[in-house]
Amino acid sequence: MVVLQLSHPTGSFNIRSKLTCFHRKFSSKVSSNVPSTSFISSSHQPDYPASLSPPASQSVAAIVFGDASHSRLYPLTKRRSDGAIPIAGNYRLIDGVVSNCINSNITKIYALTQKNSTSLNSHISRAYSGACLANEGFVEMIAAYQSADDKDWFQGTADAVRRCLWVLEEYPVAEFLLLPGHHLYKMDYQKLIEAHRDNNADVTLAVSSSMRCRDPSYVNVRVGKENQVVEFIKCQGKPPIHSKLEESIMVIDDAHDTFPSMGIYVINRVVMIKLLREYFPKSNHFRSDVIPGAIALGLKVQAYKFDGYWEDMRSIESFYHANMESTKMTDMPYNFYDRDFPLYTLPRHLPPSIITDAAIKNSIIGDGCILSNCRIKNSILGMRTRVGDKAIIEDSVVMGSDIYQSVTDDREGTATSIPIGIGEGSHIRKAIVDKNSRIGKNVMIVNKDNVEEGGSEAKGYIITAGIVVILKGAVIEDGTVL
Amino acid sequence: MVVLQLSHPTGSFNIRSKLTCFHRKFSSKVSSNVPSTSFISSSHQPDYPASLSPPASQSVAAIVFGDASHSRLYPLTKRRSDGAIPIAGNYRLIDGVVSNCINSNITKIYALTQKNSTSLNSHISRAYSGACLANEGFVEMIAAYQSADDKDWFQGTADAVRRCLWVLEEYPVAEFLLLPGHHLYKMDYQKLIEAHRDNNADVTLAVSSSMRCRDPSYVNVRVGKENQVVEFIKCQGKPPIHSKLEESIMVIDDAHDTFPSMGIYVINRVVMIKLLREYFPKSNHFRSDVIPGAIALGLKVQAYKFDGYWEDMRSIESFYHANMESTKMTDMPYNFYDRDFPLYTLPRHLPPSIITDAAIKNSIIGDGCILSNCRIKNSILGMRTRVGDKAIIEDSVVMGSDIYQSVTDDREGTATSIPIGIGEGSHIRKAIVDKNSRIGKNVMIVNKDNVEEGGSEAKGYIITAGIVVILKGAVIEDGTVL
Amino acid sequence: MVVLQLSHPTGSFNIRSKLTCFHRKFSSKVSSNVPSTSFISSSHQPDYPASLSPPASQSVAAIVFGDASHSRLYPLTKRRSDGAIPIAGNYRLIDGVVSNCINSNITKIYALTQKNSTSLNSHISRAYSGACLANEGFVEMIAAYQSADDKDWFQGTADAVRRCLWVLEEYPVAEFLLLPGHHLYKMDYQKLIEAHRDNNADVTLAVSSSMRCRDPSYVNVRVGKENQVVEFIKCQGKPPIHSKLEESIMVIDDAHDTFPSMGIYVINRVVMIKLLREYFPKSNHFRSDVIPGAIALGLKVQAYKFDGYWEDMRSIESFYHANMESTKMTDMPYNFYDRDFPLYTLPRHLPPSIITDAAIKNSIIGDGCILSNCRIKNSILGMRTRVGDKAIIEDSVVMGSDIYQSVTDDREGTATSIPIGIGEGSHIRKAIVDKNSRIGKNVMIVNKDNVEEGGSEAKGYIITAGIVVILKGAVIEDGTVL
Amino acid sequence: MVVLQLSHPTGSFNIRSKLTCFHRKFSSKVSSNVPSTSFISSSHQPDYPASLSPPASQSVAAIVFGDASHSRLYPLTKRRSDGAIPIAGNYRLIDGVVSNCINSNITKIYALTQKNSTSLNSHISRAYSGACLANEGFVEMIAAYQSADDKDWFQGTADAVRRCLWVLEEYPVAEFLLLPGHHLYKMDYQKLIEAHRDNNADVTLAVSSSMRCRDPSYVNVRVGKENQVVEFIKCQGKPPIHSKLEESIMVIDDAHDTFPSMGIYVINRVVMIKLLREYFPKSNHFRSDVIPGAIALGLKVQAYKFDGYWEDMRSIESFYHANMESTKMTDMPYNFYDRDFPLYTLPRHLPPSIITDAAIKNSIIGDGCILSNCRIKNSILGMRTRVGDKAIIEDSVVMGSDIYQSVTDDREGTATSIPIGIGEGSHIRKAIVDKNSRIGKNVMIVNKDNVEEGGSEAKGYIITAGIVVILKGAVIEDGTVL
Repeated sequence: MVVLQLSHPTGSFNIRSKLTCFHRKFSSKVSSNVPSTSFISSSHQPDYPASLSPPASQSVAAIVFGDASHSRLYPLTKRRSDGAIPIAGNYRLIDGVVSNCINSNITKIYALTQKNSTSLNSHISRAYSGACLANEGFVEMIAAYQSADDKDWFQGTADAVRRCLWVLEEYPVAEFLLLPGHHLYKMDYQKLIEAHRDNNADVTLAVSSSMRCRDPSYVNVRVGKENQVVEFIKCQGKPPIHSKLEESIMVIDDAHDTFPSMGIYVINRVVMIKLLREYFPKSNHFRSDVIPGAIALGLKVQAYKFDGYWEDMRSIESFYHANMESTKMTDMPYNFYDRDFPLYTLPRHLPPSIITDAAIKNSIIGDGCILSNCRIKNSILGMRTRVGDKAIIEDSVVMGSDIYQSVTDDREGTATSIPIGIGEGSHIRKAIVDKNSRIGKNVMIVNKDNVEEGGSEAKGYIITAGIVVILKGAVIEDGTVL
Repeated sequence: MVVLQLSHPTGSFNIRSKLTCFHRKFSSKVSSNVPSTSFISSSHQPDYPASLSPPASQSVAAIVFGDASHSRLYPLTKRRSDGAIPIAGNYRLIDGVVSNCINSNITKIYALTQKNSTSLNSHISRAYSGACLANEGFVEMIAAYQSADDKDWFQGTADAVRRCLWVLEEYPVAEFLLLPGHHLYKMDYQKLIEAHRDNNADVTLAVSSSMRCRDPSYVNVRVGKENQVVEFIKCQGKPPIHSKLEESIMVIDDAHDTFPSMGIYVINRVVMIKLLREYFPKSNHFRSDVIPGAIALGLKVQAYKFDGYWEDMRSIESFYHANMESTKMTDMPYNFYDRDFPLYTLPRHLPPSIITDAAIKNSIIGDGCILSNCRIKNSILGMRTRVGDKAIIEDSVVMGSDIYQSVTDDREGTATSIPIGIGEGSHIRKAIVDKNSRIGKNVMIVNKDNVEEGGSEAKGYIITAGIVVILKGAVIEDGTVL
Repeated sequence: MVVLQLSHPTGSFNIRSKLTCFHRKFSSKVSSNVPSTSFISSSHQPDYPASLSPPASQSVAAIVFGDASHSRLYPLTKRRSDGAIPIAGNYRLIDGVVSNCINSNITKIYALTQKNSTSLNSHISRAYSGACLANEGFVEMIAAYQSADDKDWFQGTADAVRRCLWVLEEYPVAEFLLLPGHHLYKMDYQKLIEAHRDNNADVTLAVSSSMRCRDPSYVNVRVGKENQVVEFIKCQGKPPIHSKLEESIMVIDDAHDTFPSMGIYVINRVVMIKLLREYFPKSNHFRSDVIPGAIALGLKVQAYKFDGYWEDMRSIESFYHANMESTKMTDMPYNFYDRDFPLYTLPRHLPPSIITDAAIKNSIIGDGCILSNCRIKNSILGMRTRVGDKAIIEDSVVMGSDIYQSVTDDREGTATSIPIGIGEGSHIRKAIVDKNSRIGKNVMIVNKDNVEEGGSEAKGYIITAGIVVILKGAVIEDGTVL
Repeated sequence: MVVLQLSHPTGSFNIRSKLTCFHRKFSSKVSSNVPSTSFISSSHQPDYPASLSPPASQSVAAIVFGDASHSRLYPLTKRRSDGAIPIAGNYRLIDGVVSNCINSNITKIYALTQKNSTSLNSHISRAYSGACLANEGFVEMIAAYQSADDKDWFQGTADAVRRCLWVLEEYPVAEFLLLPGHHLYKMDYQKLIEAHRDNNADVTLAVSSSMRCRDPSYVNVRVGKENQVVEFIKCQGKPPIHSKLEESIMVIDDAHDTFPSMGIYVINRVVMIKLLREYFPKSNHFRSDVIPGAIALGLKVQAYKFDGYWEDMRSIESFYHANMESTKMTDMPYNFYDRDFPLYTLPRHLPPSIITDAAIKNSIIGDGCILSNCRIKNSILGMRTRVGDKAIIEDSVVMGSDIYQSVTDDREGTATSIPIGIGEGSHIRKAIVDKNSRIGKNVMIVNKDNVEEGGSEAKGYIITAGIVVILKGAVIEDGTVL
């Protein structure tokens, strides 16, 4: 609909023709011979982002779910919402989705949560304030709350939105955009919304055309001609999801017209209100109840195919996988260095990283790390990570620390003398080391017994899918071998 | 009052007609017979502001001139840039133009100044930070400075822009928008830029179609068919402006094709650089040299007719006039209460106004005023104005105070015992009372001798065009009659 | 402990003696002949605020309770926490206590809530950001949340603090300061903490020496010599509060050594942790369980007598009373205009108030009101209040509006044609008109039948203690008489 | 004066003695056996910073000079004020002094400049906003400006302060603190001011007791008993500085009572006003005119001895030296990782650094670098530095880039195809590479001819004291050998 075009004056006298070539240069693309280090390129982007009419900043509100309803990210979520988990050195899970919104010119953003909301609220209330305030923009946290009418917690995504409708209705937007907060991908939502508007759809849901049925727990949808959604199905022989509309959902083989739903919905404002208040006032979930119900009612429910990288970090494995992917400089599936589509997060003023003598391969080093004589490979070191002499870190995610702590700093009143960070001579492999943990000297975290599931909170670590997860603030004594 | 309008394209080929109906659907107010699949009507939705492609936030940078080159606003500018003069109770002159930018989705804003830049910098660096930061937005002050190459002050608008080009070039915008900072009007610059782009113009300048030649000192332009600018002229028999291009400027009668130039220019980025660096490297002013020169060179210079309210506050009279206009609730020429086009300024957290017993007519009361038993008529009271018992204020602009000062508060170490504000029993008529001034008890500021020009800085007041201006911080002793 | 002192050089030659008198003037106070309008004075303040060692900003964290446990403020709390109720035109209830903290150099502030936390979070996350960030300062909301360990809501003040201890322990402060969020008073908490430290106390609680037993529901404490707290009692013949420590609480007459507890506690960090985790791990409330328990255990619990104005807004009546007090310019019990002890709140950039023809007595006018030909007496008009022609408002609190709405603006999609504000010819007396309500034309809200308790939510109003409360967003049709 | 003390309850029954040990632990210091990596320690700091009475935040205003009057930092200052030069990867020169102020509880900070003020203003207006706003705090830039009275630029430090006195007088502070902006050191100014107040001094100037006469161009002072300043002298046989007070300045040998003046002055407010307006109304410089003049007048001018690390970055060499020092993890002279005395700067939300295969020794890596297969030794890489395959960087300061630029990104319209950063196979040794420069492939920047002074702006580099300085934005073609 919107043609991206800069004026190309084609005047006939001298100065104009000179200017013309400038203009052309300005608006054209060089696309040949891109060397291998060109991942910073934004070559898949237009010169300027898509522009929606009416603008997304005025006509769309995003609702981000801070908790995944079936998350298997424990123990990373012991004290945090899913959305507050640190990722890729400098970020939190929710930054990806919120940045998508900001980069798509959507600046009315509500984050709904009830599990460990403190962590997420602390992040959100400080992270994007600078980026979103234009034209009444905001990222606002709505924690589950008690009111005179309702003393319960949120019972699901649909219930949460229903109970917050009185807030969400505040601005006269045309559409709501529902977004799970624990996904990693880059999408210009303006294109999704444009498709929704062009189709005169009531509901449009995004499906992944590139990630078909990788995980059997995905909910799939069958898409008919002209992209209407025919039904919700389950992958390869799995039983149908439980819902009031069970009859319309069948178990089928994976077919060319079947795609995993990304859990992303554009819903017209009035449709949303009708669905939640009138048609399905008792339904608690969008995926299992409300959206299938809308199809059954005959509403126009469309699919929008998205073929980019998409990672649903619903488990320790997928979280670990997404982190490992981010260490690849070539074929980077998710470009953190894209100037046109930046990732927003909490502003920091940390010191630079200081390194005594380190060999570092295929790794990401967050802000303000302190590395002695050490070796880092295929790993991510989060902010303020301290690594001692002769330590080795491989294939691991180290989340770093909230503070700089001196070895002799006893202000925290901890009983241990082991400082925050990775001690001298320790070796860490295929592990996730949560924040503020204290790994002593000559510790081996290598899953020596090749355990798939093990450990315990009491011991300070849990092994899941063969990945050792050191708990936040855990103390691992000198010489321990895991 | 404010007409919200989206363009309804009526093109003839297929994609456009589809868009047309979408637009119509979206912007119309249909509320009956909504079919079941589209009970979604957005019928209660308003239109949304114009949207430019590429978006103004990415493709346009505004350059606001904080000083008027021929300003006759002294003594209000004794310690301030023109742009920092308080207006309409809560604002500063420059807020109007900067808010136009923000409301037009232009968020790269440079303010150039050299006269008393401190006041303007202090305002700008704190005023819009929340409103402009999205997508790398900013309002940044560039004060005249010395560099290794150039030890001089700015010699005019063109010289200022030329010397700052290295900063202005930082972002790859398509056009620069040049704006005098001391005007009061509401314009969606996106429409101006859209016209500029539609015309493939090199330069587009805004002209006022509603304010023809009110002030003989205006510079007028003659506009040809298809809105190209033919020449710069002077109003009704006045001598032509002095310029290198004098020969192309004639003295003519006011004609239907002649309009006052508003001093607002859209200039293509590359054209600007060529004009300032190659074609007119020694020219100091846009109005007298560069723009007429561009016409002479044969560039495409277009006029954009603006028919809204426009006040050029270049003199004490016009400043006084604009303030008086703002007190009219009906036929308000400039709507300060427009939800869709708000005026941004310094955020405040002042207490509310407290009023003991006041009769107030056709007046504006700024935040945090303290009014005793008094009468206010056709006047503006700025922030924190204190008015004593039995005081009368008519047809006046009182700018208020920077602080709350107790009657006994001697922290400022002033020699006077007269507190900031308007003392008991005083009477003020047709005056401008600048900030922090101390009007004693039973003072009469009524221009008793009907002087047109008079007063002196030493006495703390100046009379110009019959308007008494009390200087900032001036002390007027008890019982004085002016 | 801290002596406020400026150096008074007493050198012997000419320039020094001149300087000396400047110094003296600077640091002394003139206090004679203060006229009646001098309420802006800060004469009861020191030249500079008290300074604590170690500084409060580093050594104290404040915990503000956003909900009053026994609040009778419904229906004002239908959609809001107590702390988010608008007061005095420009503020929210919680602003008073948070501003006390900021003005006392306490910048680590947690606000705990679970009832309608959205409103409070929205306010807090934007209100004080500028004022508190120095030296790692913050005002952070902690909404009740579910965690892996605990799926319940907060069960009381002590339970809430216990569940949040892991957050509160983050900074190595020396003391916690517990504060109810719905009180109005000005206290330099540094003096309270200084007394606490000077006494080597474990717990210090503030008592009101000026507001003895006004409300029989206050919890009183008996204070022994040297200000130790002997026991918790109830006022004049009321039954004792229910607690595990009942045996130590007696019913006594009001005696000179008995004072109402303000619910404000300073508790040493380590003592707090011990009390909540070890000694009373099941106790839910500080007032009834934990603090009496601490006395019984023999801890040093001291009283700090506060003799200033203190309003506990626990009911509609006390809320109404506090608002009415704020309209008094003379003998103002709570000075909103105190330069040295400002009240912080959400920053705004509203237009000034515009007034066509109004007679205003003993009233407070919030920012950006639009008043036609009307009469306002002993009332408070909140931000953006619109009052129509010939309307009369007396002895009332009108909370104003969140938006400017044109009479023809149908964006909100409301079914009514009555705009937000007070309609023409309406008369309002002794009422609280909540935000965004729409009072039609010629409405009489005067409690014509002198009802003490009445009305209903369905009708849009409730009468309590003879005060009519119009609900937020309620529509009162033209001609209605209440 | 201020006793840092936490309460140590010494009760006699059970619970209290348990608590006591907690308290003791909390407030005591363990200081033995600090291992070599403990530089993060704040062991030289008290538990809490010093606290001044009245507090520095209320009673002191800092005036920071953004330009060094005799700076030899060109070409780093070609487009920047001295204070805006990048240092130590993440910072700007002025951050050190401003952070000293913030950490010393001084929050009224004026930065005066006239040379290339744009760069400094842009930094200051965004850098510390979060950190300084409490209690009316600010960092405000005052650029040289024209006013009705004065059309000149600032003529020196004293002239600049004199012309800005009307602004500086706004807050009723007791003392002004004058600070050169291009120094690197950590000083708690509260101790300096405390000494000033304890001595009843008119002026106190800081002298370095650890850096005696390293640079013969330092201005030294002779300090008498009781620390009064006797006279200004020059180091070892150098001629006296030129001043009106020449007669009082003698050439002497370095003696035990002679110390370099740091250019840091505390001056009583009234003394400052008298000195600049009455006694020396024509003097332009503090060091050569006003302070020696004050001594001659008989004012009490005291010295405050500072024995910490102090680097006056007045030349390319000293700037280079300070950067090199910051790469040392042991014996770090200036601790960037001090939790209690953090360095504030512009908040960022950059991606983490990504490293393909690097060997890094004794180096500092700023935020968001992109390093391929390369070797970094004794160097500093600023933000967003990109280093290509097989590049080697030694003993160098690389300032990084303002943007991420794709190899194919032609948006900047530059004529070159060399991207920003260090190209493949290039070797850089003992160089300063300014921002946004484009070093091609296989470039050698090694000062092959061992030149002391050389190069030229036209060639894109300058050699001074044997250090090669690549200009900001310079393009060094593939294969160049310098």
